[in-house]
Amino acid sequence: MSASFDLIAAAPSPLAENGAINLEMVRPLVDHLVESGVTGLFALGTTGECMSLTTSERQSLAEEFVRSSDGRIPVTVHVGHNSLAEACGLATHAKLAGADAIAMLPPCYFKPNSLDAVLECLRCVASAGKGLPIYYYHIPHLTGVPVDIVELIGRADDTIDGFAGVKFTSPAVDLFQLGLAEAGEKTVAFGVDEMLLSGVLAGATMAIGSTYNFAAPLFLSVVQAFQEGDLEEARRLQQVATSMIHVLIRHGGLGAIKLAINELTVDCGPTRLPLRMPSGEQWPIIREELAEVGLFDWCQGLASADS
Amino acid sequence: MSASFDLIAAAPSPLAENGAINLEMVRPLVDHLVESGVTGLFALGTTGECMSLTTSERQSLAEEFVRSSDGRIPVTVHVGHNSLAEACGLATHAKLAGADAIAMLPPCYFKPNSLDAVLECLRCVASAGKGLPIYYYHIPHLTGVPVDIVELIGRADDTIDGFAGVKFTSPAVDLFQLGLAEAGEKTVAFGVDEMLLSGVLAGATMAIGSTYNFAAPLFLSVVQAFQEGDLEEARRLQQVATSMIHVLIRHGGLGAIKLAINELTVDCGPTRLPLRMPSGEQWPIIREELAEVGLFDWCQGLASADS
Amino acid sequence: MSASFDLIAAAPSPLAENGAINLEMVRPLVDHLVESGVTGLFALGTTGECMSLTTSERQSLAEEFVRSSDGRIPVTVHVGHNSLAEACGLATHAKLAGADAIAMLPPCYFKPNSLDAVLECLRCVASAGKGLPIYYYHIPHLTGVPVDIVELIGRADDTIDGFAGVKFTSPAVDLFQLGLAEAGEKTVAFGVDEMLLSGVLAGATMAIGSTYNFAAPLFLSVVQAFQEGDLEEARRLQQVATSMIHVLIRHGGLGAIKLAINELTVDCGPTRLPLRMPSGEQWPIIREELAEVGLFDWCQGLASADS
Amino acid sequence: MSASFDLIAAAPSPLAENGAINLEMVRPLVDHLVESGVTGLFALGTTGECMSLTTSERQSLAEEFVRSSDGRIPVTVHVGHNSLAEACGLATHAKLAGADAIAMLPPCYFKPNSLDAVLECLRCVASAGKGLPIYYYHIPHLTGVPVDIVELIGRADDTIDGFAGVKFTSPAVDLFQLGLAEAGEKTVAFGVDEMLLSGVLAGATMAIGSTYNFAAPLFLSVVQAFQEGDLEEARRLQQVATSMIHVLIRHGGLGAIKLAINELTVDCGPTRLPLRMPSGEQWPIIREELAEVGLFDWCQGLASADS
Repeated sequence: MSASFDLIAAAPSPLAENGAINLEMVRPLVDHLVESGVTGLFALGTTGECMSLTTSERQSLAEEFVRSSDGRIPVTVHVGHNSLAEACGLATHAKLAGADAIAMLPPCYFKPNSLDAVLECLRCVASAGKGLPIYYYHIPHLTGVPVDIVELIGRADDTIDGFAGVKFTSPAVDLFQLGLAEAGEKTVAFGVDEMLLSGVLAGATMAIGSTYNFAAPLFLSVVQAFQEGDLEEARRLQQVATSMIHVLIRHGGLGAIKLAINELTVDCGPTRLPLRMPSGEQWPIIREELAEVGLFDWCQGLASADS
Repeated sequence: MSASFDLIAAAPSPLAENGAINLEMVRPLVDHLVESGVTGLFALGTTGECMSLTTSERQSLAEEFVRSSDGRIPVTVHVGHNSLAEACGLATHAKLAGADAIAMLPPCYFKPNSLDAVLECLRCVASAGKGLPIYYYHIPHLTGVPVDIVELIGRADDTIDGFAGVKFTSPAVDLFQLGLAEAGEKTVAFGVDEMLLSGVLAGATMAIGSTYNFAAPLFLSVVQAFQEGDLEEARRLQQVATSMIHVLIRHGGLGAIKLAINELTVDCGPTRLPLRMPSGEQWPIIREELAEVGLFDWCQGLASADS
Repeated sequence: MSASFDLIAAAPSPLAENGAINLEMVRPLVDHLVESGVTGLFALGTTGECMSLTTSERQSLAEEFVRSSDGRIPVTVHVGHNSLAEACGLATHAKLAGADAIAMLPPCYFKPNSLDAVLECLRCVASAGKGLPIYYYHIPHLTGVPVDIVELIGRADDTIDGFAGVKFTSPAVDLFQLGLAEAGEKTVAFGVDEMLLSGVLAGATMAIGSTYNFAAPLFLSVVQAFQEGDLEEARRLQQVATSMIHVLIRHGGLGAIKLAINELTVDCGPTRLPLRMPSGEQWPIIREELAEVGLFDWCQGLASADS
Repeated sequence: MSASFDLIAAAPSPLAENGAINLEMVRPLVDHLVESGVTGLFALGTTGECMSLTTSERQSLAEEFVRSSDGRIPVTVHVGHNSLAEACGLATHAKLAGADAIAMLPPCYFKPNSLDAVLECLRCVASAGKGLPIYYYHIPHLTGVPVDIVELIGRADDTIDGFAGVKFTSPAVDLFQLGLAEAGEKTVAFGVDEMLLSGVLAGATMAIGSTYNFAAPLFLSVVQAFQEGDLEEARRLQQVATSMIHVLIRHGGLGAIKLAINELTVDCGPTRLPLRMPSGEQWPIIREELAEVGLFDWCQGLASADS
């Protein structure tokens, strides 16, 4: 039954020590992800620090992610930008580069003041994607754009060519469930790793997240236990995952997640300002805390990679 | 297995048409709740508009809720108040009135600026409760007091006599699950009706909510389906519940919920300013929308009560 | 010209070391305030920790403030409460106690969802005040009730008997100025001590604030310099005041202000939970910082009181 | 004395009807601004919709603003971007293009989590500006980056080559005044048009704003009246300005301001998504409201331009 669940890694963007993009590490990262059981890639999203990259860096990375995936797993390229003109350019580029789909954060320096305005933005970028499936990326605590996501799904479905669904990154599982009902054949991907099990029970068939870069086996076990009806085990595994994520949140959030990716899988280098990463000296402390919550007991692949 | 789940109604406070408290309607309300399968009462909380009542009104209602429950179901009395002195007085009164437990919102005009300050407040009220079990009432979107609830549970458990757990009213199921783990034998009651199923899967054995006043059979069916392993059915029933709640949110939230209680169960009268209730003329429209989402197909008791 | 400016102290509520109200210290406090040049008292507002007191404590203190002022300066009693029924009781009591005016914060656990609802609340309390002038107390960063204050002034003026104006505690001087224009003969009192000079230039003829309890001479000098056309001096004095307030904000805000009142004028005792006061051991540090920004050079009365 | 006050227009970015940048309208806009008494240009800031433009559009417009000013008035080019790499590129370009100064909004999708991180961002862009004076652009209600601006000024002054000051767009006049004191020889430009008079009294010698594009004569009259000691007149004129701005806020804010610029001065075309502009049919209504608050009585130049 687990073949029916899509676990998508929101990939980091490999950078060199000097801060430049590091295209050479993309393939090792993708290789790792494919091996770890991830079924798709979400490139250049929040985890990928898209907003901290230049347009041409985003294009180069998008190309390299597509190339490296080599048809093994589908690649969705995030193209949102405060400038819709840049976003449209990135959408067209993603099409030419061979991406399987695109996704769009709404502009958020100037915040669209209505659902109509959000839909106009989405329509504009969808059109530039020339037929590529497009996802609306809903992450209101970061964008400050608190759109009625259920209504958005209904209206986008009716009026936007290529609309493929939503990346739903909010703890409001009630709205996630209503969104799924509204979406019909379209996808509502769940984006809160620390609540994956809630999303799955509400009906999620796809999840996209940053910690799937290094802990996919753990999360796949959560889903498998659920699908096999072993809810006690599913809950126990989710608790390991949730505890692990809160360790990383306490150590700085996204910066700590990139450090964990580097240490546990493939070295993707530093984050870019304004994000800051814990120093390497903090890793033994973080690792110890991750061990205490049981991360390495449930991800044998990780344990061996790290030993 | 369903005997092991506590569904607690966050009861409304019956008011007369002139706005005074209406003690005579408390017993019919409690009778209805007991019959509908609710296993406990949470009196004078947010749904009970505690903050809009005077101290003496809160005392009279607390006494009447205890008297009317008559030992059939336990009664938890909320005693939180911006004035801790009033809260302590209410806690002592609740003890004398025979309440089974008390609960406390933190003061929130002046917001405690640290977990230490929150714990001092809780300790003060616990002490006034003279041994009554006491719950901390966590509802950060209303109080603006964003305490680290997992740490609060651990520290309260160690240092506050009578600490019984938390009423957790937030969609952060990750923190709910971590809170449950931290709580050990203590209770973490889930307070988001529209996400009940998420809470149950995360380990909830108690839920407290406003819509359990009129839709307990529906929510009990959600829990039962879950406990019987019929997750598809559990999800379907939760979706009916979630849709129903969003109908009421669109019509004004708590005021619309009290109108639904009045129309579908026992007439508990108007809300008090600053809350406002939809006019009676809106009820047929609301009722039609509730029917459309399937509320009456899944709560036969309600349908007959209403016909 | 300075007779035309009203500087109103938002008085603290004297408490004993055990936390009980301390009526005996009210008269010394009022004596000090009268001597220091304050032209009115705002009792039981935010500085007075109204929300942390019981209803009967608020009544006792209101009576004592009126009695102690003895007609020397007018006393406005704040009567706002989350429970409008309590607020109305306090309003009626204030009338009987001989207060010169009342003021009302809106309920803010449940937040009025429209200007209409706020006006209904204000009308209800005004009516209970039986003819006493009533001020609406606008402090949106504490209440989270972001009413259109200019429209409120216009509509309250037309429809609420006794409406006397607004206590405007927000840095939006633009709205303050528009409010003054809308208010006509009614009062819009400026409530941001650290921006007093901005308020005066915008047209304020009354200011209400917490630091006027111990630094009235400084602020009266600001106003006097302004009125005499010595804007350089007014600016310089305001900067001393602003710097002083930011020292107190850094040391904890309202708790530090009460400590400063205690140390520099009359001992009004501790704050109540959830507020916390810096320990006495911190006072020498705070005092040194206040000295550095020049507070004692510009308030000779204070310097001598302290020596 | 008025020569000592700098009134800087935060210029709009001229666009063609099809949404492309319209370089041809830059010179007429600059000509108008110079004639209207503005003493400097702030190009490609919030009013210039920088975030909605591509990097190359920003470069083209920056060049054209510098060229069109032709040394008549200094041009500050805003170069902030979520991507610091893009911001650095824009800073270097501004230097080559001949800008007189640059300014930087902090990245705000990812929000710097400390003052240190903000300063690192500023240092990075300052360095790319190769000696150009650089201003930090503080507008916390739009960026959600609530830095301690007084401390920033002190630390930037000590450690960042080229640091020239701050564009302070917040109603907190207290912090503005403390910032001025901290800034010494550096500039703290006041950015709240509707409170200009407050800023001037607090010590502002420079103001930057969007409504100075079409109402510079009015604001210059405010400053002149103040400088001549006619505070009644200054207050009266500021009230006209404040009322005018609130008319535009009610009609949609920045979109309505661009419409007013177009109708009253030089046609700079539409706004870009996600901003939306009131339709042309609304202009007569807006114009009538502007007339009612007295805008055209106090800006003779505008009245004739419009007749």
